[in-house]
Amino acid sequence: MTTSHHHDQFRSLPITYDDIVQAHERVRDQAHHTPVLTSETANRISGAELFFKCENFQRMGAFKFRGAYNALSQFTPEQKRQGVVAFSSGNHAQAIALSARELGMRAVIIMPEDAPAVKIAATRAYGGEVVLYNRYTESREVLGQAYANEQGLTLIPPYDHPHVMAGQGPAAKELFEEVGALDYLCVPLGGGGLLSGCALVAKTLSPACHVIGVEPAAGNDGQRSLASGSIVHIETPNTIANGAQTQHLGQFTFPVIQACVDSILTVSDQELVDTMQFFASRMKIIVEPTGCLGAAVALGKQLDLRGKKVGVILSGGNIDLRRLASYFSE
Amino acid sequence: MTTSHHHDQFRSLPITYDDIVQAHERVRDQAHHTPVLTSETANRISGAELFFKCENFQRMGAFKFRGAYNALSQFTPEQKRQGVVAFSSGNHAQAIALSARELGMRAVIIMPEDAPAVKIAATRAYGGEVVLYNRYTESREVLGQAYANEQGLTLIPPYDHPHVMAGQGPAAKELFEEVGALDYLCVPLGGGGLLSGCALVAKTLSPACHVIGVEPAAGNDGQRSLASGSIVHIETPNTIANGAQTQHLGQFTFPVIQACVDSILTVSDQELVDTMQFFASRMKIIVEPTGCLGAAVALGKQLDLRGKKVGVILSGGNIDLRRLASYFSE
Repeated sequence: MTTSHHHDQFRSLPITYDDIVQAHERVRDQAHHTPVLTSETANRISGAELFFKCENFQRMGAFKFRGAYNALSQFTPEQKRQGVVAFSSGNHAQAIALSARELGMRAVIIMPEDAPAVKIAATRAYGGEVVLYNRYTESREVLGQAYANEQGLTLIPPYDHPHVMAGQGPAAKELFEEVGALDYLCVPLGGGGLLSGCALVAKTLSPACHVIGVEPAAGNDGQRSLASGSIVHIETPNTIANGAQTQHLGQFTFPVIQACVDSILTVSDQELVDTMQFFASRMKIIVEPTGCLGAAVALGKQLDLRGKKVGVILSGGNIDLRRLASYFSE
Repeated sequence: MTTSHHHDQFRSLPITYDDIVQAHERVRDQAHHTPVLTSETANRISGAELFFKCENFQRMGAFKFRGAYNALSQFTPEQKRQGVVAFSSGNHAQAIALSARELGMRAVIIMPEDAPAVKIAATRAYGGEVVLYNRYTESREVLGQAYANEQGLTLIPPYDHPHVMAGQGPAAKELFEEVGALDYLCVPLGGGGLLSGCALVAKTLSPACHVIGVEPAAGNDGQRSLASGSIVHIETPNTIANGAQTQHLGQFTFPVIQACVDSILTVSDQELVDTMQFFASRMKIIVEPTGCLGAAVALGKQLDLRGKKVGVILSGGNIDLRRLASYFSE
């Protein structure tokens, strides 16, 4: 695997491969080096050789820890002294809370008051100070900015930040370092933090690799953005892939996606349920709906992957057991 | 880790450590080298450093493949030409069917006609010829012996066979080779195939390691056998740990267990459900009830494991998703 000339090609992007290498060094001792699993059944279904990178086994249950820790560990001493603020009802909340705890930093997490109690509890368990807001009468952006200004906290967004994006890249870097060059890499797509970091790694370490971003069919803003050349905004999509209910790509993630992603595909909620069932029954792992986006394409019929070597990022495994049970009873 | 003088101590047992080393070489290219997972939450609960050996990720979903393949690969050319017969409604059936397929051998699997359709289908999917019997009017032992005699098939029992026992040992060998010496090793106990192989490995590679066999509270025949010094027979125990519904230890497994196992403990079905929920919610893995036996002790209060380094064998992950859903809804 050669890296030199591809550095140049992507030099003007918001993140570089060197940023990802440095992020990997920075986070290495804190993040899990997650395993890569294979499955004879998955290979038979797809006709390909599939390699599943299990970020559902990452700390706090999702890749988000990598980017959050990479961002917080680059705070100035003054920023560290004051702390961080984030708004999220999902994995970003827990990722920021856990990273802040590991770095001895205060974390304020702004969550909707109707967020699942289990998520609020998990965020508090990681030491986060949870501030609840009414999402019908209050704006989390305004609230977050108010905390940032009045209490000197640094706001870290869930995906549209170069340090967050670079921090996600090592998920793919570890995969390529373990299995070598790939023909395809399938990655879940919400706001593009994971996809941008992983795509830049793919094009650097395995230039011929086709990078496929996968988003829920209920909200194909990424697909439309790539086609039109500018960021498309949509209403919050109605999908079980709650980590991909984003309304638009980011100003930092979009140019990286334009430069490094070959295609964006979509899958239905039913395909996500089928994929979750496959992982549970055949591979004995739990992957949350959003985490199944890339795998649903790899195991589906949209691409002819016969004879190909295909990497799949399983981005997370955080799902309430009762909800999981409801999917398994279908 | 030193092995020399412990070879002598256990030389008169039905299996030796050398048998296990040879089994490992024999099966290495066919069996998965399963990952060892860790969990901060599990460590916090137990106060120990826990290492989970994930045989739920083994081929066909359980450790059983190791022993079955080791046994079948030692058949004579004539035995291979004729094939194998086994009776089982569980993981042994699939392990024999898959091993026979890999070795190009005929496999007849005798299963009760009221066995779950999914298990019959899985056994057939691995190429096994399924023979159904009525368990209220027919004896599977008589039926199996008839097939063996009339068709020249070799009967392979699920646990009480030195080649099967030696074949399971590498599960523990891989664990010790990955994490080094351990203070405790917790292993599920049904008929003792897994426990005997793993215990001999533990006492050879890590002589100070306390080996704990764990069986369902509904049937503590192993515990009573170890206490009394002779094999205790019981009625089929009523437990969700269907891989441990054995009625007695074996003539080959018992002496190894006597020589190498320090203690046999029991856990309730509720503890198994709690442990399954822990694995799903915190570690994102699916472990069948029998596979949780060792872990239920490691995560429970029977032993004071604070400050100890503890290995846990998760023996399998084969469970119907609807049944799993029912445990997750509790």
